[in-house]
Amino acid sequence: MRPSKRAPDEMRPVSFERGVARYAEGSCLVKFGNTHVLCAASLEDKPPPWLRGQGRGWVTAEYAMLPRATHTRTRRESSSGKPSGRTQEIQRLIGRSLRAVTHLPALGERQVVVDCDVLQADGGTRTAAISGAWLALHDCFQWMRSRSIIKENPLRDHVAAVSCGVCDAGPVIDLDYGEDSTAKTDANFVITGGGGLVEVQSTAEAAVFTEADLSAMLSLARAGIGKLIEMQKAAIA
Amino acid sequence: MRPSKRAPDEMRPVSFERGVARYAEGSCLVKFGNTHVLCAASLEDKPPPWLRGQGRGWVTAEYAMLPRATHTRTRRESSSGKPSGRTQEIQRLIGRSLRAVTHLPALGERQVVVDCDVLQADGGTRTAAISGAWLALHDCFQWMRSRSIIKENPLRDHVAAVSCGVCDAGPVIDLDYGEDSTAKTDANFVITGGGGLVEVQSTAEAAVFTEADLSAMLSLARAGIGKLIEMQKAAIA
Amino acid sequence: MRPSKRAPDEMRPVSFERGVARYAEGSCLVKFGNTHVLCAASLEDKPPPWLRGQGRGWVTAEYAMLPRATHTRTRRESSSGKPSGRTQEIQRLIGRSLRAVTHLPALGERQVVVDCDVLQADGGTRTAAISGAWLALHDCFQWMRSRSIIKENPLRDHVAAVSCGVCDAGPVIDLDYGEDSTAKTDANFVITGGGGLVEVQSTAEAAVFTEADLSAMLSLARAGIGKLIEMQKAAIA
Amino acid sequence: MRPSKRAPDEMRPVSFERGVARYAEGSCLVKFGNTHVLCAASLEDKPPPWLRGQGRGWVTAEYAMLPRATHTRTRRESSSGKPSGRTQEIQRLIGRSLRAVTHLPALGERQVVVDCDVLQADGGTRTAAISGAWLALHDCFQWMRSRSIIKENPLRDHVAAVSCGVCDAGPVIDLDYGEDSTAKTDANFVITGGGGLVEVQSTAEAAVFTEADLSAMLSLARAGIGKLIEMQKAAIA
Amino acid sequence: MRPSKRAPDEMRPVSFERGVARYAEGSCLVKFGNTHVLCAASLEDKPPPWLRGQGRGWVTAEYAMLPRATHTRTRRESSSGKPSGRTQEIQRLIGRSLRAVTHLPALGERQVVVDCDVLQADGGTRTAAISGAWLALHDCFQWMRSRSIIKENPLRDHVAAVSCGVCDAGPVIDLDYGEDSTAKTDANFVITGGGGLVEVQSTAEAAVFTEADLSAMLSLARAGIGKLIEMQKAAIA
Amino acid sequence: MRPSKRAPDEMRPVSFERGVARYAEGSCLVKFGNTHVLCAASLEDKPPPWLRGQGRGWVTAEYAMLPRATHTRTRRESSSGKPSGRTQEIQRLIGRSLRAVTHLPALGERQVVVDCDVLQADGGTRTAAISGAWLALHDCFQWMRSRSIIKENPLRDHVAAVSCGVCDAGPVIDLDYGEDSTAKTDANFVITGGGGLVEVQSTAEAAVFTEADLSAMLSLARAGIGKLIEMQKAAIA
Repeated sequence: MRPSKRAPDEMRPVSFERGVARYAEGSCLVKFGNTHVLCAASLEDKPPPWLRGQGRGWVTAEYAMLPRATHTRTRRESSSGKPSGRTQEIQRLIGRSLRAVTHLPALGERQVVVDCDVLQADGGTRTAAISGAWLALHDCFQWMRSRSIIKENPLRDHVAAVSCGVCDAGPVIDLDYGEDSTAKTDANFVITGGGGLVEVQSTAEAAVFTEADLSAMLSLARAGIGKLIEMQKAAIA
Repeated sequence: MRPSKRAPDEMRPVSFERGVARYAEGSCLVKFGNTHVLCAASLEDKPPPWLRGQGRGWVTAEYAMLPRATHTRTRRESSSGKPSGRTQEIQRLIGRSLRAVTHLPALGERQVVVDCDVLQADGGTRTAAISGAWLALHDCFQWMRSRSIIKENPLRDHVAAVSCGVCDAGPVIDLDYGEDSTAKTDANFVITGGGGLVEVQSTAEAAVFTEADLSAMLSLARAGIGKLIEMQKAAIA
Repeated sequence: MRPSKRAPDEMRPVSFERGVARYAEGSCLVKFGNTHVLCAASLEDKPPPWLRGQGRGWVTAEYAMLPRATHTRTRRESSSGKPSGRTQEIQRLIGRSLRAVTHLPALGERQVVVDCDVLQADGGTRTAAISGAWLALHDCFQWMRSRSIIKENPLRDHVAAVSCGVCDAGPVIDLDYGEDSTAKTDANFVITGGGGLVEVQSTAEAAVFTEADLSAMLSLARAGIGKLIEMQKAAIA
Repeated sequence: MRPSKRAPDEMRPVSFERGVARYAEGSCLVKFGNTHVLCAASLEDKPPPWLRGQGRGWVTAEYAMLPRATHTRTRRESSSGKPSGRTQEIQRLIGRSLRAVTHLPALGERQVVVDCDVLQADGGTRTAAISGAWLALHDCFQWMRSRSIIKENPLRDHVAAVSCGVCDAGPVIDLDYGEDSTAKTDANFVITGGGGLVEVQSTAEAAVFTEADLSAMLSLARAGIGKLIEMQKAAIA
Repeated sequence: MRPSKRAPDEMRPVSFERGVARYAEGSCLVKFGNTHVLCAASLEDKPPPWLRGQGRGWVTAEYAMLPRATHTRTRRESSSGKPSGRTQEIQRLIGRSLRAVTHLPALGERQVVVDCDVLQADGGTRTAAISGAWLALHDCFQWMRSRSIIKENPLRDHVAAVSCGVCDAGPVIDLDYGEDSTAKTDANFVITGGGGLVEVQSTAEAAVFTEADLSAMLSLARAGIGKLIEMQKAAIA
Repeated sequence: MRPSKRAPDEMRPVSFERGVARYAEGSCLVKFGNTHVLCAASLEDKPPPWLRGQGRGWVTAEYAMLPRATHTRTRRESSSGKPSGRTQEIQRLIGRSLRAVTHLPALGERQVVVDCDVLQADGGTRTAAISGAWLALHDCFQWMRSRSIIKENPLRDHVAAVSCGVCDAGPVIDLDYGEDSTAKTDANFVITGGGGLVEVQSTAEAAVFTEADLSAMLSLARAGIGKLIEMQKAAIA
C-alpha cells in the first residue's frame, strides 16, 4: 500500500493553467498534487553566442526553487554564488527534453528561455516542469506566429515526463516527497506524443534494480505520460 | 490625469491571501494591482552567528524577482553570482521595517527569515512586500505561540508601506511601472499602525523636489497605509 | 548635551583640499572632523555599454573604506568577493546625487567615475563623500574644458549632503560615529545649491520618528548644507 | 560499419594500472583506448559536516579534465570560478556508483574522496572513471585494513560502467569521441558484479529511441561490463 | 643619464610619517617620491586558524591600490571578485619580509595584519610598502607592550626594501614608473638592519642579465637600504 | 649529508618524454625524481585581447596540481573558485621564462598556452615545469612550421630552471619536498642556453642569507641547468 493510498499506477491530481505570467510570451502553472511549478517562456532576439550565424535558434531552460518551496527552508542560490549541481542537472534535462521536439531552424536566430520556478515542492518537480514547460513553449511559439515572427510552428510533437520508483509496494508512478525519499530506485522518463523515448534515467538508491524493474517502471511511465499529453492537448484545444 | 485613470490618492486594488505556502510557518500572497509578491516566513532554530548568546532573536528578509516577473526577462541572480545592489537595498529595507515593530527578546535565540519573491512586477514591489511580509511574520509568530515555542507575541504593532511620486499630475500614490518610470520624484514610506514613521526615502529622478512635495507625498502615504493596515487587521480577524 | 559638546546645529570642522591625487582628472580630500574621504574623478572614453549610441554620458561613483579606516579592522571586500550591500547602497546614492546636478548630454559619450575611498571613518562617510565628490567632478569637467573635450560645463548646480539624527538631545546635525551608533533615528539629506531636495532618507533605529522630527532634521540639514556649499564655492574661487 | 572498424559489441583495448599515484592510499590509471583517467583515492579523517555523529562514512568523487586532454583546449575550471554543470553531473554519478557497492557504516566516521582526472579524452571518460575508481577505492580500503583502521572490507561488490549508443550502424558499445558526437542516442550503464543495475541513463540526441534500442544497449552493456569486472578481478588477484 | 636626472645610486626623496591612521595600533605614511603608501597595523586576538594552539603568532600583510592611484584608472578588485595575481604576489612578499625579522612566539597566539594601501603609484610600491610596514608593525608592538599585552619586543631587526634595475644608463636604484616600464631588468631587494638578505628577486624584461648586473644592483640596494634603515631609526628615535 | 644521500651538486634523476599528450600541438612529461609534470602546449588562433592588432603573439602558461599529487590531498582550485596566490605566482614565472627566449613577432597574432599539470609533487615542481615546458613549446613551434603557419622558429634559445637551497649541509641543488621544507633559504634560478639569467628568486625561510650563499647557489644552478639543457638538446636531436 502506498502512503498516499494511491494505486501503483495512479498519478496525483494534475492541472495545467495557461497564461499565468502576464508579461511572458507563454506561461503555464503546472500542479502535480502539492508540487507547483510556474513555467514562463521568454523570447530573446539573439541565439546564444556559440550559435550565431548558423541560421537556427535555441531553446533552453532555467530551474529554481523558491527558498520555502520545501519543508525546510533552502538557501537561496544567489547567496551561495552559483546554481548547485542538482539545479544544473535539472535545467539541462528540461532543455534537452524541449529541444527533442523542437525544429530549431524554424525558430530563426533566436532563443527561447523557459524559466521553471518551483513555488511548492512535494516530489517530481523536474517532471512537472518538463510537462508544463511544453505548454509555455507552445504558447510562446503561437505568440510568435500571431505576430509573423515565424511562419511555421517549430514544435514537432508533445513531450511530457513523469517519475517512477521501486518502493516496498513495488514499482509505482509519480512519487511524492515522502515516497521519493524512501524509494529503493528512482527514475525519470521523458516521452514524446509519438511514444518515442527522450530520456530514461534510473538510479539505485537503497538497492540495485533489475531489468524487470526498469520495464515495469517504463510501462507505468508510458501510461502516465499518455494521460499528461492528453491533458496538454485539452489545454490548448 | 494619471495614465491609469486613478485619482491621485487612489491605490490599486489590494489583496492579501494568507496561508499560500503549504510548508512555511507563515505566508501571504499580496497583490497591489498587477504586482504580486509571495511572502513566506521560515523559523530557524538559531540566530545569526553574530547574535549568539545575547538572549534575543532576529528577523530578516530576502527579496528576489522571478526572471520573467518583469516586462522583459531579467537574468537570474544565481547565474551572476550575487544579489544586485538593488536587491540588497530592498531586502535590507524589508528587514528593518519588520524589526521596527518586533520585540526581538520575545523571540528567544531564533531567527525568522521572510522570503519575498516577486511573481509579477508592475511597480511598488518593495512596498507590497513589506505590507505582505508583516502578515507572514504574524502567522509565523502565531504558529510559534500555538506550539508554545514563545509565550508572548513579539509583534508590537502593524507596519505597512506604500510608494508615492511626483508626476506631471502632481503628487500621487502607489505608482505602477509606467508611472514610476516617468515620475520626477520617487518615494517610499513605511509607517506603523500607531502612525510612527519607520522609513522615509525620497529620491529626485528627473528633477529636484521641494519640502511641499515631500509633505504632500507623506500625507498621501499616511492615508494609504492606514487603509493597508485596516486590511491587515481584517485579514487576521 | 551632545557627547562632542557641539550644539545641535553645529557641524564638525570641515575642509576641502583639491588636487590631492596627482594622476586623477579631478580630486578632493574632504574632512568632516575625523572622517576623511579621498575623492578622485576619472574620465573614461566610453559610456557604460547600456548607454552607447545615445549621445550622452554618465557619472557614477564607487565607494570603499580602507580596512583600517574604522575602529576595528574590516575585511577587505576583494577578499570576500563582492561589495557588501551597504557599499552598494552608498555608491548608488553618491552617483544619483552627482547626476542630479549634471547635464549628461553635455558630457558626450563619456563616463566619469568618482572613486570615494574612506581613509578614516568617524560617521557620516557617505555625506562627506558626496560633498567632496562634487569638487572632484567639478575639477574633472574643468580639465576637460581646458582641453576642449567639452564646450560647456555639464554641472548645473552645486550639491552637498549631511547626516542628521534624533538623539537623546533631540535633533542634531553631522553625527560622529559614537552619536550615530546610539541615535534613535538616522537621516541623510542631499540638497542642491538652489535648495532643491535630491535625497531624503530617514530611518528609525531604536524608535519610530514623527513628522516633526523629520522637519527639524530637514531644517538643520538645509542650514548645514548651505555652509558646505559656501565652502565649495570658496574652494573653486 | 563503425568508423573504428570495431564490431558493435567490441570495446576498445582496456587496461588498469594500479599504484600509479605514489602518495595516494589507492590509485589506478585506467585506459579505454585513447581515453586515460587517473583515479586517486584519498582517506580523510572526518566525514562531511552533514554526516557527523551518525556512525558511518562517506565516499565521494571529484572529476576534472586537464585543459588539453581534449582535441581543442578547454578552459580551466579554476579560472571560470566553478565546476561546470557537466562536471558536477559526472562527479555525482561516480560518487553514487561507488556508494552503491560500499557498506558505509563499515568505513567509520571517515570519508574517501576519489579524484578522477582525465589525462586524455576520447569519449567515455565517465564510464572509464567509474571502472577505474573502483580499483582505487579497493586499494584504499586494503591500505586501511592493513593498518587496522577498519576491520572488514566495506566493499560489497564490484562495479563498472560502459557507454553505449545508437549509431547508423545500430546499437554499439564503448563509443569513441567521433562516434559519440554523431550518435543518435547516447547511454551510460553502471552495473555491479552481481548483475544489479546501478544507473541507466539514456538520452536522445538526434532522434528519439525505442524500448528495443534500450534493451539492445543494455545487453551490450551487460556483456561489456562483465569483461571489465573480470579485468578488475585479475588486477587485484 | 636617467630621465629623472638622478644619479644611478640616487633614491627619490623619502619620508616616513608615523601615526597617520587614528584608529590603527600602528601606522605609517611612506613616500618614495610620488609613490605614497599608507601602512596600518591591526592587532587581532586570534592567530589564523591553521596556527591555533601552537603558542605563537603570525604577521601578515594585505596590499591594494586605490583605483586612481595610477595614471589611468584600475578596476577595483572587489568588483572583479578577487585579488589579482600581482596583488597576491606582493602581499605574500611583504608578509614574508616582516616575518623574517619578527620572533613569532613572542607575539603569543595573536595576529597582526599590516594593510598597505597605495594612495599614489609611481613605481616601487612594494618596496615602499615593506619599508613603511616595518614602522607600522613597530608601533603596533609598542602599543601592545605599553598595555602589557606582550612583554618583549618581537622585532629582532629592521627590514627595508628597494627596487633596482638595469636601464640604458646601466644599473640604477629606485626606479620610477617611467624608468621601470623601460628597464631591461627589474629587481627587488629586501635586506635587514644587520645586512642579511631576505629576498632577492631579479627578472629579465627586455633582455637577460648577467651575474655582474646582479652584483651591481645588489650593491646599490645595500647602500639604499642602509639609508632607509637610518631613516626608520630616526623616525622612532 | 643530504637526507637523500645526494652530493650537494647532485640533481635527482631527470627525464623528458616528448609527445605524451596525443591531442596537443606539443607536449612533454618531465620528471625530476618523484616530481612529475605534464606540459602541453596549445596553439590558439588569437592573441589575448589586449595584444590585438600589434602584429605579435604571446606565450603564457597555466599551472595546477592534481589534488592528490601531494602527500595529503589538496582542495581542487575549481571548488574554491580561484587559483591560489602560489599558483598564480608560479604560472606567471613559467610564462615569463618562456617569453624570455621567444621572439614574439615571429609567432604572428597567435597565442600558445602551455599547461603544466603536476601529476606528482616532491619539490621543485615549478622548475621542472619550466624545463619541460620549453620542450612542449619547441614541439608546438615545429608543428606550426611543418604546417607553414610560421616561417621561422620563434625560439631564440633554450631555457631551463632548477631550485637551490641553503640547508644544514650548506648550499645544495634540486631539493626534494623533505629538504625543501627544512631549508633555511630557498631559491629558484632560470637560465638560458647562452648562460643569461632570466630569473633569480631567493627567499630567506628560517634565517637570512648572505651574498656568498647567493653566489654558491648560483654556481650550483649554472652547472645543473647546463645539464638540463644538454638533455633538452638530446631530446630534440
